[in-house]
Amino acid sequence: MKTSYPASRKIYLRGKIHDIKVGMRQISLLDTISVENGIQRREENAPVVVYDTSGPYSDPDTDIDISKGLHRLRASWIERRNDTEKLPAFSSAYSRQRLSDTTLEAIRFPLANLPRRAAKGKNITQMYYAQQGIITAEMEYVAIRENQQNEALGIASHITPEFVRSEVAAGRAIIPACINHPEAEPMIIGTNFLVKINTNIGNSALSSGINEEVEKAVWSCKWGGDTLMDLSTGEPIHETREWIIRNTPVPAGTVPIYQALEKVNGKIAELDWEIYRDTLIEQCEQGVDYFTIHAGLLRAHLPLVQKRTTGIVSRGGSIIANWMTQRKEENFFHTRFEEICEILKQYDVAVSLGDGLRPGSISDANDAAQFAELSILGELTRTAWKHHVQVLIEGPGHVPMHKIKANMDEQMKHCHGAPFYTLGPLTTDIAPGYDHITSAIGAAQIARYGTAMICYVTPKEHLGLPDREDVRAGVIAYKIAAHAADLAKGHPGADVRDRALSKARFDFRWRDQFNLSLDPEKALEYYKAGRLGDESDHCTMCGPHFCAMKLTKEINQIQDCKK
Amino acid sequence: MKTSYPASRKIYLRGKIHDIKVGMRQISLLDTISVENGIQRREENAPVVVYDTSGPYSDPDTDIDISKGLHRLRASWIERRNDTEKLPAFSSAYSRQRLSDTTLEAIRFPLANLPRRAAKGKNITQMYYAQQGIITAEMEYVAIRENQQNEALGIASHITPEFVRSEVAAGRAIIPACINHPEAEPMIIGTNFLVKINTNIGNSALSSGINEEVEKAVWSCKWGGDTLMDLSTGEPIHETREWIIRNTPVPAGTVPIYQALEKVNGKIAELDWEIYRDTLIEQCEQGVDYFTIHAGLLRAHLPLVQKRTTGIVSRGGSIIANWMTQRKEENFFHTRFEEICEILKQYDVAVSLGDGLRPGSISDANDAAQFAELSILGELTRTAWKHHVQVLIEGPGHVPMHKIKANMDEQMKHCHGAPFYTLGPLTTDIAPGYDHITSAIGAAQIARYGTAMICYVTPKEHLGLPDREDVRAGVIAYKIAAHAADLAKGHPGADVRDRALSKARFDFRWRDQFNLSLDPEKALEYYKAGRLGDESDHCTMCGPHFCAMKLTKEINQIQDCKK
Repeated sequence: MKTSYPASRKIYLRGKIHDIKVGMRQISLLDTISVENGIQRREENAPVVVYDTSGPYSDPDTDIDISKGLHRLRASWIERRNDTEKLPAFSSAYSRQRLSDTTLEAIRFPLANLPRRAAKGKNITQMYYAQQGIITAEMEYVAIRENQQNEALGIASHITPEFVRSEVAAGRAIIPACINHPEAEPMIIGTNFLVKINTNIGNSALSSGINEEVEKAVWSCKWGGDTLMDLSTGEPIHETREWIIRNTPVPAGTVPIYQALEKVNGKIAELDWEIYRDTLIEQCEQGVDYFTIHAGLLRAHLPLVQKRTTGIVSRGGSIIANWMTQRKEENFFHTRFEEICEILKQYDVAVSLGDGLRPGSISDANDAAQFAELSILGELTRTAWKHHVQVLIEGPGHVPMHKIKANMDEQMKHCHGAPFYTLGPLTTDIAPGYDHITSAIGAAQIARYGTAMICYVTPKEHLGLPDREDVRAGVIAYKIAAHAADLAKGHPGADVRDRALSKARFDFRWRDQFNLSLDPEKALEYYKAGRLGDESDHCTMCGPHFCAMKLTKEINQIQDCKK
Repeated sequence: MKTSYPASRKIYLRGKIHDIKVGMRQISLLDTISVENGIQRREENAPVVVYDTSGPYSDPDTDIDISKGLHRLRASWIERRNDTEKLPAFSSAYSRQRLSDTTLEAIRFPLANLPRRAAKGKNITQMYYAQQGIITAEMEYVAIRENQQNEALGIASHITPEFVRSEVAAGRAIIPACINHPEAEPMIIGTNFLVKINTNIGNSALSSGINEEVEKAVWSCKWGGDTLMDLSTGEPIHETREWIIRNTPVPAGTVPIYQALEKVNGKIAELDWEIYRDTLIEQCEQGVDYFTIHAGLLRAHLPLVQKRTTGIVSRGGSIIANWMTQRKEENFFHTRFEEICEILKQYDVAVSLGDGLRPGSISDANDAAQFAELSILGELTRTAWKHHVQVLIEGPGHVPMHKIKANMDEQMKHCHGAPFYTLGPLTTDIAPGYDHITSAIGAAQIARYGTAMICYVTPKEHLGLPDREDVRAGVIAYKIAAHAADLAKGHPGADVRDRALSKARFDFRWRDQFNLSLDPEKALEYYKAGRLGDESDHCTMCGPHFCAMKLTKEINQIQDCKK
C-alpha cells in the first residue's frame, strides 16, 4: 500500500523548539537549456517542496504493515506533557462488548494500545495550551508544514509557531489532534492558513469491506486529502473505524449519530443520550479527531423546513429532526451540549457543528431555516470554547454564486471567527454526474472569502457511493479549488509550484511539468495518448508551425541578436 | 449521426413577426406522488423546455445526410431581404484552385450552392439592420430562444425582439450569422443574454480526419456547444471546413491566419496581406461566421513580453509577433484593419478581436502586455463598428481568482460594451489533465461578472488534442459554468430546470432527475453502477435508515397528522 510520486523524495524538516521532523515531498527538476547569442546555456532549477498528506506511506524507509498500524508519531509528545493517563480498559460499554465478542476476532484490528484520557483536573486541548501561551509540538509542526519551502526560498511568511499558537488560542484555527490518534500528522484548519480539503469515505449497508475502506483512506491521502471522515453506516462500523484510524496519517472525523442509530437498529425514537454518550466515548477512545454534531437544529426550526424544495438533506440533521418530531422533545445534542463538551475535552476531540439545515437545492439557499441554525451554532461555539473545545462550523450545500459570499459573511457575523467548513457549495443542481465540478466552482469562491476547509464532492454525489477513481476525481477537483483560493488569498509561497510548472511548460521540460502537477499520472497518460513520436520543442496539439511557445522563443532569439 | 435525449421531444415555437419556428427540447416528467393524511395524492409536473443547440440532428422528422448538408434554414430569410447577390463563382483564387483540383474529388463536399455577397452599396450586417430599427428574423429567433419556456410559465422577461435589436444596435451583443452559413440557427452573444459556450475542434498535421471532425462538431452541439471554432492546422483545411460548416447548426469561427500560414508552408516571413486577404474571402464565402484576428498586438508590445514566464501562448499572436520581428513591420492585421472590415461586412462575418498577449500562466496575468493590447482592441472596436461589423473581444487565459474581476472591468472600460469572450480563465497552472476544472472555476466567475461567451477547455489542454470524450467533458464543464453564471445573474427563468430537477430528486423520481440533467447518460450510468436493486424511496448511498429526504418526508407526515 505504499504511495509514490515521480521524481519525488521524502524530506523531513526539523523543529527548532521541539524535537520533531515534518515530512514533505521534494520534487527534483531538470535544468533549463536555452540558447542565447548562439551559445547554449544551462540553468539549474531548484527542487520544489510541496505539502505532503501521504504520511509514512510515501517514505521508502518506512515499513508499512496495516495490521500493526502506522508509527505513533505523537505518542511521546503526548506522554511527555504528563497531563493524560493511560486507561486500564476502554470506558465505553460498547467497546468492551465488541472486544469480548470472539466472533469478531477475524475482522478485529490487533489492538496493541489502550486509550488515554486527560488526567483528573487537567485540560489537554490544543486550544487550552495555546491560551496558556504554550507552543506545543503540534503547533510548531503545522507552522513548518504551512511554510513548505518558504524559508529556503527567502519568502517572508508571518506563519510562525507563535502565530499558530495565537490563532488556535483565539479559536480562529483548530489543530484536530485527538490524543488517541497519535498516528496522525498535525495539520491546521483556519482562514489564515492553507485551505484544507476533507474527503469522505465509508461503507453503507452491504457495500464495501474493511480492506477497501483502508485502501480508500490511503488513496485519499495520496492525492492530497487533509482530513478524512469515515461516514460508514454499515456493519461492522466499530471495527472498520479502528482499522482506518490506526492506518491514517491525517485527522479522522465521524458523525457519531450514525453509529448510535445502528445500535438501536435504525429506530430513531429509541435513540437516547445514554447510547449517544457511550458512542462518543467509544469513538474518543478509538482516536476520532473531530465529531460532526448537529446541535444547532432546534424544534423551532422545523416549520421553516416545510416550505423547502428539498427539505432536510443532511443525514444527521434529518435523524435528529425526526427524533424531535417523534419524541416531541428538544434536540438532545443541544440540551446536553455542555456534557458533550465535558467528554470531548478529555481527549481533545474537536466539535464540528453540523449544519443539519444546509440547503439541498439552490432554491433553498440562504433561507430562514439555514441562517436560524447558523446563529445557534454561534452560541454553541461560545459554549464549546468555555471548555476549550476546538470548534469548526459546517456550511452548505447548494448555493448559487451570487449567494455564496453572504454565507461567509453570516458565518463571520455569528460564529466569532471559528473556522468555516463547507460542503461545496454546489452552484447549480442540474449536473448530477459532475457535481465535483458544480461544487469545486463554489468551493473555490467560498474558500477565497475565508472558508478554512472544503469538503470534497465526488462525481457520484446524489447517485451512489464513490469508488477509488471517484475519490481521486473528487480530491483533485478540491485540491484545485483549495489551491486557487490560496493563490487568491496570497498565502505566502502559494504560487511557487505554479511558477515552476509554467516555467517547465515554457521550457518544454514535459516530465517536470507532469511531475509538478497535482496528478502526474493522469497528465502523463493524456500526454502519451496524443504523442506520435519524440517532439521536444513542440507537440501534436499544434504541430511545428503553430507552437506559440516555440515561436516566442524565436522572437526572443531574434531580438537578442539585435542587441 | 442523429442526436437523442431521453424523455425529450423536439418542439418548435413560432414567431409573431416573422414566419419562423424555433427548435427547443421539451423534457416530459412523471407525476409527483405523495401521501397526505394517509391519502395518496398525484400531482402533474409540467414538462421542462430547455435551450437546444443540437439543431435538426435531434428532430426525428428530419433526414440527415451529411453529404447533402443541413437544411438551409436562413436561405429564404436572406434572399427575401433582397440586399445580397448570388455570385457566379467563388471570389477567392484559392477556392477556385481547390475546386479545379480533380485529385480532391474524393474528399470534397458535393457543393450545391454558390456563395452570396452584399449587393453593391448595401450593408447587410445584423448590427446595421438593428441600427436602422429593423427587427430581423434572426433577432426574433434569438428572442424566442433565450426565453425558453418563460412565456408558458408566466415568467416576466425583458428579452423581447425589440430588446435584442437594441442590444445588437448598441454593439453590446452580436448575432454571428454569415450569409453563407444559412444552416446555422441564430443565437446571440451578449452580457444581457444567456452565457454561451464555444467549443474548439480541428485537426493538426497528421491527426484526425474529416469524418471525425464532423462527428466531433455534431457531438459538441449535442452536449450544448453554442458555437464552434474549427482550428484545423493540418491539410486538407479547406475541405474539412466545408464539411463542418455544411453540417453544423451553430455558428462557426476560425482563425484565418492558421490556414494562411499553411499556404506559405509555415514560413512566417512569407505571409502577406494578399494571401491573408484571399483567405478571408475564401472563408467568408464558405460561411465562417466569425474570425479571430489578432489585430491589437503591436510591435511596441513585444518588449513587454520578454519578462514573462510563458511569453506568448496564443498561436495566432505568436505568429504575427514572429512576423513583425522578422519583417520589422507593424502588424498588418492592424494596418489593414479597415480593409478587413470592408471584406467582413459584405458577408456579415463578425470579428473576434484576438488577445494575442493573453497570459499563459498565472504569474503573467493582468500584466502590462495584456492590458496594452486590450486598449488597442477597444480602438479597433470603434473602427469595426464604423463599418457595422459585429465585434467580440477575446480575453484570457490563466488568471488567479483575485485578478479575474479586473479583467472584466478593464474590458468594460476600454471596449465600449462589446461582448467579452474568454478562454477559461484557468485559476491555477498546477493541474494539467484537469484544466476543464481549473478553468470552469474561472469561467463561471468571469461570466458572472459579465463575460458573454466562455471558450471551453478540455482535460487534454496543454497535453494533446481532445477526443470525443474530452469534448464531452469540456462542454459539460462549461455548460455548468455558464449556467451557474446565468443563475447568479438572475437570467429570467434560468432556475426552472434546477427547481424541476431538485423537486424530482426530493420525490425520488430518479428518471426525471437524470432526464433533466446536463448529461442524462452519465448520471444514469453512475446510478446503475451503485444500485443493488429497486429502491424507490432511498438509495444505496445512505441505505434505508439514513436517507435524509425519506426522513424529512416522515417528519412532514407526522406534522401533517398533528394538524
